[in-house]
Amino acid sequence: MEGQNRTELKDLGEFGLIELIKNKVQLRNASTLKGIGDDAAVIKYDDDSKTLISTDLLIEGIHFDLSYVPLKHLGYKAVMVNISDIIAMNAVPRQITVSISLSNRFSLQAVEEIYEGIFLACELYNVDLIGGDTTSSVSGLTISVTAIGEGKEGKIVYRSGAKESNLLVVSGDLGGAYMGLQILEREKQIYKESPSVQPDLSDCDYILERQLKPEARLDVVREFESLGIKPNAMMDISDGLSSEVMHICKSSKVGVSIYEDKLPIDQQTFDRARDNHLDPTMCALNGGEDYELVFAIDLSDYEKIKNHPMFTVVGHFLNESEGQTLTAKDGSNHALEAQGWNSFKDDEE
Amino acid sequence: MEGQNRTELKDLGEFGLIELIKNKVQLRNASTLKGIGDDAAVIKYDDDSKTLISTDLLIEGIHFDLSYVPLKHLGYKAVMVNISDIIAMNAVPRQITVSISLSNRFSLQAVEEIYEGIFLACELYNVDLIGGDTTSSVSGLTISVTAIGEGKEGKIVYRSGAKESNLLVVSGDLGGAYMGLQILEREKQIYKESPSVQPDLSDCDYILERQLKPEARLDVVREFESLGIKPNAMMDISDGLSSEVMHICKSSKVGVSIYEDKLPIDQQTFDRARDNHLDPTMCALNGGEDYELVFAIDLSDYEKIKNHPMFTVVGHFLNESEGQTLTAKDGSNHALEAQGWNSFKDDEE
Repeated sequence: MEGQNRTELKDLGEFGLIELIKNKVQLRNASTLKGIGDDAAVIKYDDDSKTLISTDLLIEGIHFDLSYVPLKHLGYKAVMVNISDIIAMNAVPRQITVSISLSNRFSLQAVEEIYEGIFLACELYNVDLIGGDTTSSVSGLTISVTAIGEGKEGKIVYRSGAKESNLLVVSGDLGGAYMGLQILEREKQIYKESPSVQPDLSDCDYILERQLKPEARLDVVREFESLGIKPNAMMDISDGLSSEVMHICKSSKVGVSIYEDKLPIDQQTFDRARDNHLDPTMCALNGGEDYELVFAIDLSDYEKIKNHPMFTVVGHFLNESEGQTLTAKDGSNHALEAQGWNSFKDDEE
Repeated sequence: MEGQNRTELKDLGEFGLIELIKNKVQLRNASTLKGIGDDAAVIKYDDDSKTLISTDLLIEGIHFDLSYVPLKHLGYKAVMVNISDIIAMNAVPRQITVSISLSNRFSLQAVEEIYEGIFLACELYNVDLIGGDTTSSVSGLTISVTAIGEGKEGKIVYRSGAKESNLLVVSGDLGGAYMGLQILEREKQIYKESPSVQPDLSDCDYILERQLKPEARLDVVREFESLGIKPNAMMDISDGLSSEVMHICKSSKVGVSIYEDKLPIDQQTFDRARDNHLDPTMCALNGGEDYELVFAIDLSDYEKIKNHPMFTVVGHFLNESEGQTLTAKDGSNHALEAQGWNSFKDDEE
């Protein structure tokens, strides 16, 4: 980012930067009538479609640490985090707006790296970048993404529809993104204390990718379509399985029982957790940032997902009065606790 | 904000804060099918409506200075800035999402003050708050707003439709918001040097309001409807008249001629500019932040707006080859210059 190829943002100006980004945008959806270049973008879906909107703010020093997150990955992840929310409504992301503020410590090349990741995400997920805002900041980098999606009439899934005796299902595996973060934080600490030590990242490739380059599960929504499944309730796992399931229970007015021995945990996540004296179950329950989907389906749909490589049944919903419990491997029952992330909490507490 | 009524954000947590905001939200539009409380909001317009999206990022120390901007006004203005972009497409704002990041220096009461302004704007402009994100920051306050609007088929106005011989019209008056900012900056400087001096804000009420509490011109869009006018091109004036008109010229491939003596400048703006050794014309051309509308109409529509208190004809569009000129009061011609704001420029330059 430094050296003779560095272009200062102040020399380019805000309009120059917008022009540069605009020229690199490719539109992929017929519903995008007008993208960047006017006061607002214009989108239009079929008559039986609804428009979905989701937004997230990512702050340097709170949500990401540029000492180990490459800028391109940051751009990619910022898009994933948002389109994952659209996907969690059983809908298809179509457009995004991206606003970025950054201090003079960043060059044009840095901004271009971020947009490289954004454009890659747009390409792979067939999403159009249709607008945004670019401005300077006093310090640090902030990325705000708003995703817009298309939901077909009768197909949108809220978090409030789970019913007693529904199965609780998750896609993929859990805890990997959290363990990846622990490894990155550990290496940062080691580097601070002994800059000459080479990082030991052997056998960490999968969990590092889970943390640095998560994928939103659009493939799962498409699989629902082919399997003929419409979940009764669904969320994406950003704060952690426990936290999301408790949200579903609260909105749906149901209880839940999760079985520890059913939690899908990748071997690498498991091994690295043990190496670091962490409980793999706790990583899977409270880790967050896996961007997998957690959903409720009718018991009658069980045959459709049984032995399906994408899915794991991890529990079932109960009457609200039965509460929210985790059944441990030894058969003991524990109250489920949401340790979802509170960005306002001081680290030292 | 300080004292015994101060509630720390870390004690409330992110979910607590979202819950608190969610409980205060009132939905006003039938098109808002689902607001805050799921992964994404869901909106749906009539079959002949298009969905418009606009987004802006406001950064403390860059876009606002909390030493003289009350938090409630900041919330109000953040909404105005965004819905003004929807209005500038000749459309009606319907929903907003609001994301806020703030450091521990802010209390719950501070957040509530910001939302008071946001809710007031929602009420007065009939807009629904449907989602957002709330998070901590390392330092400072950031507000990101995305506005969603409804444009009727055939009614949306882009910046690219101005034609040769069209009239150039503005709503309201110009330069007031900029002069208001100069007064606030001056008083801040005086206070820094002599904290005991009482601020002299006599005869500044109008321009201070223009800066601190701008109003998006939804009334103008409604007036177009009753007058039977559809502008050929339109923008809202956020960066300054010159800058916006030059954008219209570039997108529409036309030239323009603006007459200095036609520029609508309020007496208070004029007087305070002179007091501060500023050229009122320059304030009107380059001041920005007035959030008035600038638009192009057919010559045949002139009768409809002639002597209308909302509008002033300030020039006309020309063939692209004739360039962009300002005709001064003395009859001399000058090339129009955009001094639109570049947030990346250092102050000292």
